[in-house]
Amino acid sequence: MRSITVDLGERSYPIHIGSGLLQNIGARCVEAGYPVRSPLLLVSDSSVAPLYLADLESRLREHGYTVVSHIIPSGEASKSLTSYEEIMTTAIKAGLDRSSAVIALGGGVVGDLAGFVAATYMRGIGFMQIPTTILAHDSSVGGKVAVNHPLAKNMIGAFYQPSMVLYDLDTLSTLPQRQVSSGLAEVVKHGLLVDRDFAYWCREHASELLELNPEALGYALERGCSIKADVIAVDEREQGLRAILNLGHTIGHAIEAVSGYGVVLHGEAISIGMAGAALLAHKLGRDKSIYEETVSMLSSLSLPVTLPSHYDEDELMAAMMHDKKFKEGKMTFVIPNSIGSVSIINDVSETAVREVLTQLKKEGSPW
Amino acid sequence: MRSITVDLGERSYPIHIGSGLLQNIGARCVEAGYPVRSPLLLVSDSSVAPLYLADLESRLREHGYTVVSHIIPSGEASKSLTSYEEIMTTAIKAGLDRSSAVIALGGGVVGDLAGFVAATYMRGIGFMQIPTTILAHDSSVGGKVAVNHPLAKNMIGAFYQPSMVLYDLDTLSTLPQRQVSSGLAEVVKHGLLVDRDFAYWCREHASELLELNPEALGYALERGCSIKADVIAVDEREQGLRAILNLGHTIGHAIEAVSGYGVVLHGEAISIGMAGAALLAHKLGRDKSIYEETVSMLSSLSLPVTLPSHYDEDELMAAMMHDKKFKEGKMTFVIPNSIGSVSIINDVSETAVREVLTQLKKEGSPW
Repeated sequence: MRSITVDLGERSYPIHIGSGLLQNIGARCVEAGYPVRSPLLLVSDSSVAPLYLADLESRLREHGYTVVSHIIPSGEASKSLTSYEEIMTTAIKAGLDRSSAVIALGGGVVGDLAGFVAATYMRGIGFMQIPTTILAHDSSVGGKVAVNHPLAKNMIGAFYQPSMVLYDLDTLSTLPQRQVSSGLAEVVKHGLLVDRDFAYWCREHASELLELNPEALGYALERGCSIKADVIAVDEREQGLRAILNLGHTIGHAIEAVSGYGVVLHGEAISIGMAGAALLAHKLGRDKSIYEETVSMLSSLSLPVTLPSHYDEDELMAAMMHDKKFKEGKMTFVIPNSIGSVSIINDVSETAVREVLTQLKKEGSPW
Repeated sequence: MRSITVDLGERSYPIHIGSGLLQNIGARCVEAGYPVRSPLLLVSDSSVAPLYLADLESRLREHGYTVVSHIIPSGEASKSLTSYEEIMTTAIKAGLDRSSAVIALGGGVVGDLAGFVAATYMRGIGFMQIPTTILAHDSSVGGKVAVNHPLAKNMIGAFYQPSMVLYDLDTLSTLPQRQVSSGLAEVVKHGLLVDRDFAYWCREHASELLELNPEALGYALERGCSIKADVIAVDEREQGLRAILNLGHTIGHAIEAVSGYGVVLHGEAISIGMAGAALLAHKLGRDKSIYEETVSMLSSLSLPVTLPSHYDEDELMAAMMHDKKFKEGKMTFVIPNSIGSVSIINDVSETAVREVLTQLKKEGSPW
């Protein structure tokens, strides 16, 4: 088992990564400080629950815990205030008290939603994340929890740190290949941000990662989580440094918004966005090799690096402007300086961004 | 103007108390750090809004702020997830951003609801409290924000500190007399907890307080807020000391629950509860003069200190057991040791509490 500590003073917590971790869930809950006399609430979705929930419940009960489960339909539509209130009702009926905890078993939607319940039930109770996707290695570290408002995503939420993240690699074995690649986009992103060696390591070990080799995957998740944890430790509430984590996300979010959420996977969208940021870097005078290396790394993980030709630049630009409220034609972007180093540039011209979108349709091979 | 600082490290904030403060609301918003380019959201209720809202809006606009207002129906029923989502919709449509702030103009319901919006809109934005009741001197200090769930009060919420509390004594002039007394119950409570001199001061100046004499009221609110702020500074998240603030609340909440919320005012209920706690103190061996002095202080503020005879002990006991989940016949109470000093006793017998309820029906004069 690999363990990392996210260092946030009195809100510090461990991330455990390894195979077979869920077998000791009872002991982990004790380690996290949850008393057996207080009920636990398991939140999962309709895809993940059939695979692991019954086992988890019975292990917790064997350990003396009272457990109640709440299953949401899988998919982004469940990240709503309606689901939130339903889970609150389950929690109250089950008698959760101030020493209780919410355990999120699933991907990002389950983690964000269950985390917001934990953050606000009786003004905050225990919260454990059990991510079951690679992508969730990113969302489960950092304490961003939220639900969507019909008018805008992630608009209602909190910064609320879990008491523990438990990453059982066995739960990743059933992931479809496209989901694996999508998750690896956030992994390699952490290398591109601050760790050149790790970025190259990802390319060298791409086939092992795609095959979910436990040794390679365990190392990659440990490095990915560590890098994110280091950034969070400096800037928990996104006042400055944390913004670097948005590499590839400005263009990526626009692609997701324009295509309709769920058509392009999050990791695929930010992969194209990272290729775009590297093109933008070249336009701002950085070496073109940054773009070439970035594309080569992303491609090795079977990720897209070009924009399908049916995307409209105007629509993408409009989505970006809406997302970030840029003023007077100047946009803010996370731009690579080299592989493993980035800067936040806040006076990128709209024209340059539009040119990059056009170029993203032409460069490389279509996917 | 009197000013206090609530000392919570990077979450510290000032409480300003005085007459005519709302005339400088624009400058106060600048002092609180709200940039004029980010829209402000005013939340008020149907009772308070007609009195002060238009003036507040125009003063803010004169100062260059963009302002949007949301008015809820007055009363506890508005402290719901439904109102919460409606306010969120107003905030999103008005384009509130991460530098925006929510300003709560009203009593406890408005403060709790608007505070929970501020705590969770885009994971937390600015929050200013403008309490318009005496009772709200208590709820506006301490950062407890919440909405009710249909199954239980205050079940959904957060600890979220305002950036400023602005107490304009002029807004208290329209309060009905019963509301004035109810608010003063929490004021004198702060003296009973930790400040003997202040408790006696309240009795000596009772008539000035009841007449809303600005000098007396300003001092009383300053002391009340200061004492609460000192407790919060030691125990922001209610892990220990903060529990002393519940003096009179165990019996008080039961009276409110049994009578139906709104029939007995909160201050009236905890006044009876504080008399009960003093009776309990006598039963546990403390001097009977504590009870006599407590009753004299509360009575001087026109507050009730006995239980009307139609209340049923069984119902009250059931409400208390439900509220606090006491185990094996032992209950936790905040008990006075003397005027100005309390202890938390966690093995009070159910029998003793029941006897106190019976005695509360007999002691003193009916109200």
